[in-house]
Amino acid sequence: MSEPESMTELEAVSELGAEAEKLDVADELAALRARFVLDETVYLDGNSLGALPANVPDRVADVVRRQWGRLRIRSWEESGWWTAPERIGDRIAPLVGAAPGQIVVGDSTSVNIFKALVAAVRMARETGDGAHGRDEILVDATTFPTDGYIARSAARMTGCTLRPVVPGELPGALSERTAAVLLNHVDYRTGRLHDLPSLTAAVHAVGAYAVWDLCHSAGALPVGLDEHGVGLAVGCTYKYLNGGPGSPAFLYVRRDLQDRFDSPLPGWNSHAEPFGMRPDYEPAQGALRGRVGTPDILSLLALEAALEVWDGVSIEAVRAKSLALTDFFLKCVTAYVPAGRVESVTPAAHEERGSQVALRCPDAGDVMKELIQRGVVGDFRHPDVLRFGFTPLYVGFGDVERAARVLASVLLRRA
Amino acid sequence: MSEPESMTELEAVSELGAEAEKLDVADELAALRARFVLDETVYLDGNSLGALPANVPDRVADVVRRQWGRLRIRSWEESGWWTAPERIGDRIAPLVGAAPGQIVVGDSTSVNIFKALVAAVRMARETGDGAHGRDEILVDATTFPTDGYIARSAARMTGCTLRPVVPGELPGALSERTAAVLLNHVDYRTGRLHDLPSLTAAVHAVGAYAVWDLCHSAGALPVGLDEHGVGLAVGCTYKYLNGGPGSPAFLYVRRDLQDRFDSPLPGWNSHAEPFGMRPDYEPAQGALRGRVGTPDILSLLALEAALEVWDGVSIEAVRAKSLALTDFFLKCVTAYVPAGRVESVTPAAHEERGSQVALRCPDAGDVMKELIQRGVVGDFRHPDVLRFGFTPLYVGFGDVERAARVLASVLLRRA
Repeated sequence: MSEPESMTELEAVSELGAEAEKLDVADELAALRARFVLDETVYLDGNSLGALPANVPDRVADVVRRQWGRLRIRSWEESGWWTAPERIGDRIAPLVGAAPGQIVVGDSTSVNIFKALVAAVRMARETGDGAHGRDEILVDATTFPTDGYIARSAARMTGCTLRPVVPGELPGALSERTAAVLLNHVDYRTGRLHDLPSLTAAVHAVGAYAVWDLCHSAGALPVGLDEHGVGLAVGCTYKYLNGGPGSPAFLYVRRDLQDRFDSPLPGWNSHAEPFGMRPDYEPAQGALRGRVGTPDILSLLALEAALEVWDGVSIEAVRAKSLALTDFFLKCVTAYVPAGRVESVTPAAHEERGSQVALRCPDAGDVMKELIQRGVVGDFRHPDVLRFGFTPLYVGFGDVERAARVLASVLLRRA
Repeated sequence: MSEPESMTELEAVSELGAEAEKLDVADELAALRARFVLDETVYLDGNSLGALPANVPDRVADVVRRQWGRLRIRSWEESGWWTAPERIGDRIAPLVGAAPGQIVVGDSTSVNIFKALVAAVRMARETGDGAHGRDEILVDATTFPTDGYIARSAARMTGCTLRPVVPGELPGALSERTAAVLLNHVDYRTGRLHDLPSLTAAVHAVGAYAVWDLCHSAGALPVGLDEHGVGLAVGCTYKYLNGGPGSPAFLYVRRDLQDRFDSPLPGWNSHAEPFGMRPDYEPAQGALRGRVGTPDILSLLALEAALEVWDGVSIEAVRAKSLALTDFFLKCVTAYVPAGRVESVTPAAHEERGSQVALRCPDAGDVMKELIQRGVVGDFRHPDVLRFGFTPLYVGFGDVERAARVLASVLLRRA
């Protein structure tokens, strides 16, 4: 609907355009956009790869040219390389509601899911009645595939059965056989936000451990790990945390569980005395027990710079704007797009919505290609989903209105 | 011995100094030094962190500013991000004697050791007489600690016993119970080069699989993976391959074993159809079955640039210079350092020597500190080893002579 065809449509456009303008003027986070490198594109794919924070290029250049190029190995101490995994973990901590000393950064999300799930099974079997009978791992049946694949491997290697369950039916599936449960905080496809407090409590009530995958919630909404007593969580840093392509993931282990965290990947970086070069493994205390091998410094320090965009920003304010953005997007889509042409699979209720809107559309693959050509970047998720992610740090209400308008135009031309 | 005290010492210095000059003039690889960012320091720690290749900073800047900053998610295809792990693996392949299609890059060395060892045990149990009785993993008792820790975890998770064995006694320790053997090509401490062809053959002869850790040989000497029928190998890329601090490791799986490679970390990147988002795991064909999660692009592409320093360089020429450098260093140490003050624990025989010289010295920790202050950078390995690595791409014979001279001076002053 770039060329409105009737007075009513024109009015809708001008009304929503005016509303967007007002919302942008009132937006307390609007100035944060200047902390990123952006162009005229409406970038609604920050839930796949966050935009580049403006301070990252110079920081990375310094890491490469001075820290690596001139100081070389001295940087392990002098440039703080060695302690980067836990230092950067502490920087992420407030964004997910964790006190310091419980998060380390390193390895991919998949690898961290493996560590956390195996450790969860081992903890569940360690104590309590019927601990040895715990032989089931439950996994969100609608999960991002890697979680399911890794959960299957964790089950196989710990002598468990893997049982996929849709989150709504999880409470009924829990039993004294349950050792661990792998759950997504926000569904990668639909954008549905699951009820972390009540599901965590239900898992703990049967003596099992929940591992939360925060890939689509960290940096997008308050998680409240400490507040809700979560035991184990993992998340990626290249979506709402803007760490860069494939930047390392993070692992949260609740403080009182750290002594019992028995990693399946006990690399030398998790040793109590890594440079002792001792033949016997003695795990370090604290969060750094989740470390494995030599940390990937270039990516870690790019992420550390990227996290500075959060200075002075509260995750609650981000959440408020995120809901306003997705509300407004749904409103614009309803106004502009012919009825029945797309169907939102993202819940309308705020307490069930992450920071994305997923629209089911039979020709979603082709539609997304056209959208991208016309400067609106979201992504396509097999088989029929248009996925739009809303990053409150750099997406405005004008962007949202334009995205809906271009979407309507593309759909009308294809009709 | 910076201030020679007798005519004889003066003569030795001037003689070896002149010899170094002649060797540098005749060195066919001398010009390669210009491909690195170096200063007046004698850098003999490239076996811990390789020096910065001169083309890396601009490449990394382009990856950050243009590929991430401007193209954003389009770079997964347009900038070749998605295929980086196997493309960069193919770039490493000729340096370790592998045909293309057998190496992927990603994850840390520790994580890759876990993948390879577990896969090796599974393969050993798959076929043949007594396959089910295979319940032992043997590991080099003198290994870098992480290998032993990870091997212990792999054993625990596959129902095996871990048995540490010194490499010289390995042949006698092999039996029909052996499932897998983890071996270092070059010992990280002593610099001893183990006999890869014969040890591999011995392991295969009992129906087991060897996993070779090439951290201290890849880029330093010919490995001949294909030629010697090695099944599985891993190696790091930040030592002699100069990939930068914590750059991702590589995993080699021999072509005819790839269909049987059953990874304990089956992340979505190793799926036959990663964007199909299918609930069931179906492994990809070929080397990329060794992939796990989203690849770490910044570090991978820094490594890719770093590997360009090898253009036109043969690993055989590198090996010839490496042996000449370590020979010359030992000669200078013998001439300059008071007899009995240090003892080389690196084998004198070329076929048993990697690209480093390790000198036992009771006060090694303090001596290394003084050496570094005086511009000669090696490293200290607990409890009493001065370790000097020789990277033929950028270390010259003059550097070697100076290192030995400064070492002698430090030792004399401390005497």
